[in-house]
Amino acid sequence: MRIAVDAMGGDFAPAVVIEAVADALREIPDVEILLVGHTEKLAYHLQKERLKESSRLHYVHAEEVVEMGEPSTNAIRSKRHSSITVAAELGAKGQADGVISAGHTGAAVAATKVKLRMAPGVDRPAIAALMPAVGGHFILVDAGANTDCVPLNLAQFAVMGELYAQLIFGIERPRIGLLSVGGEDVKGNALTKETFKILSKMPINFIGNVEGHDLFDRTADVVICDGFTGNVVLKSSESLASAIGTWLKEALTKDAFRQIGALLAKNAFHDLKAISNFEEYGGAPLLGINGVCIIGHGASTPKAVKNAIRVANDFAKHSLPAKITDRIRECHVAVGDIPMNTPNAKA
Amino acid sequence: MRIAVDAMGGDFAPAVVIEAVADALREIPDVEILLVGHTEKLAYHLQKERLKESSRLHYVHAEEVVEMGEPSTNAIRSKRHSSITVAAELGAKGQADGVISAGHTGAAVAATKVKLRMAPGVDRPAIAALMPAVGGHFILVDAGANTDCVPLNLAQFAVMGELYAQLIFGIERPRIGLLSVGGEDVKGNALTKETFKILSKMPINFIGNVEGHDLFDRTADVVICDGFTGNVVLKSSESLASAIGTWLKEALTKDAFRQIGALLAKNAFHDLKAISNFEEYGGAPLLGINGVCIIGHGASTPKAVKNAIRVANDFAKHSLPAKITDRIRECHVAVGDIPMNTPNAKA
Repeated sequence: MRIAVDAMGGDFAPAVVIEAVADALREIPDVEILLVGHTEKLAYHLQKERLKESSRLHYVHAEEVVEMGEPSTNAIRSKRHSSITVAAELGAKGQADGVISAGHTGAAVAATKVKLRMAPGVDRPAIAALMPAVGGHFILVDAGANTDCVPLNLAQFAVMGELYAQLIFGIERPRIGLLSVGGEDVKGNALTKETFKILSKMPINFIGNVEGHDLFDRTADVVICDGFTGNVVLKSSESLASAIGTWLKEALTKDAFRQIGALLAKNAFHDLKAISNFEEYGGAPLLGINGVCIIGHGASTPKAVKNAIRVANDFAKHSLPAKITDRIRECHVAVGDIPMNTPNAKA
Repeated sequence: MRIAVDAMGGDFAPAVVIEAVADALREIPDVEILLVGHTEKLAYHLQKERLKESSRLHYVHAEEVVEMGEPSTNAIRSKRHSSITVAAELGAKGQADGVISAGHTGAAVAATKVKLRMAPGVDRPAIAALMPAVGGHFILVDAGANTDCVPLNLAQFAVMGELYAQLIFGIERPRIGLLSVGGEDVKGNALTKETFKILSKMPINFIGNVEGHDLFDRTADVVICDGFTGNVVLKSSESLASAIGTWLKEALTKDAFRQIGALLAKNAFHDLKAISNFEEYGGAPLLGINGVCIIGHGASTPKAVKNAIRVANDFAKHSLPAKITDRIRECHVAVGDIPMNTPNAKA
């Protein structure tokens, strides 16, 4: 599998990305990397990170970078030669089997949406984020690709999330929940109330509304929401986990007893950090596009980027887009009167 | 001050509420309680909790209760004799200076909105939840009163949140942030982008978008959002804090070293629990109504309900509704072309 890696994406790019690529080439035998970035700017870091010549490593020049403060659409308008856009083009031309970026999320969504296009039948792509829960994990879809959604989008996210849970996590009949403000079907906002009706008719294992209060109790395998809510939940959860880490540290250093206790139990805190450190999870797939794109956390560590490369490599072996297209067609038949895609989406 | 307490509201009502009332009468010298509930059903618990006769305690009969699964509007339609509706009526008639319920949040909002009415100029009430942050707290408005909002509502929430922070927490010039998916003004959904423009024109200390990622870093004193997002953030944060507690417990019992360490440091874990236990915070005020209503957490402990009584008692001493009306008028002048309230709201 050939994976196009956006070398310029992420808070610590390109250094972190290059380190991750070196590790990935060592650890993942069948992967081939197309490292996309400004070759002159990369040169310094390449030497520093001692990235050796390899028959499985190729460089692709990209003149520009979409910076964090810019509008997402710059990736396809004013900065068509940006690293993420060039990486997406490699995917579109069939020169790469997957694309990875830990940079501007909106830009990655925009570039892959335009270059790779959508899987037939899908209106909008969605980011599927893996979240820790008591006794396991759950998948949050959409974690930030679409800030404004209609019920139809959420119904499609349910299909994509179901297939993702089945193919990648081997869950035969994933429990699909709708993120809302109350457990009962009468509770929610206009968007979730309408979505509830559609999901109820679909041939999926829809378990109803999931309240914020039950979110980390693993009541559902896949939790569906609009990308604004999903992004706020994902990011604020990271923020709270980090705050709790700070409070714990402060509490453990207040007196000598606590300090000695903390020393004895220090491995427990490492375990806790490993569970609640969302940044280590190695990237979230952008589902619904006609190809493979893994979006890394902006603050990704080399390990996280390496994991993202591994995920992209695994992902590219499944034909998820074609399966999504088929499944949306099945659901479309089941819901009957409600269309499963908008007229202007390719079917 | 006379506070009407919904005796039937909350997961452990009426026992928990009665225990809280007994404590409040002991600890808060100037408070007078109107305990609203089904007097026959209360009798058993009254005896059990040894709630003594007191000249500061009065009973008011209410035939019904709005149960958790019911639509909010039942409080003002099919169950007009419910405990929350009767409590709100006591407020409307001037027989109570404040109302408290740890029951059905939507029912409390509906009942007080209809019985007490809105403060002149305010379109929608909002729940202001106090949240822990590194080095302090922040106020989240709206934490769940309105599932669907327009920009104007959020602009009014900013005014109400500002006054709450000033009057109750003594913050002279509270930093107001807008919860969104990116720090830049170009990022957000249709609602936040439009709201951003209005907040920028208002004579408040608007610091721009606050990302989920910065939420618990105390970048803002008051964080504004629609009630759907706010409720999901509040509840999922509680859920995550509880999950982290579970993971920590599991990690600390894995071997003997950790167990001894945990024993030595046990006070640190108590400290941590006190900070991150949202349920102990004692209720959130419903801002924007023409009176005082404090909404308690469904799972409130006696301590939390007692704190809610204390908060209501303090709150009733300020004339917040009149101040909100004045401040909305000031902001209305400042934003110029954008109306600060909808035509059908009383001004």
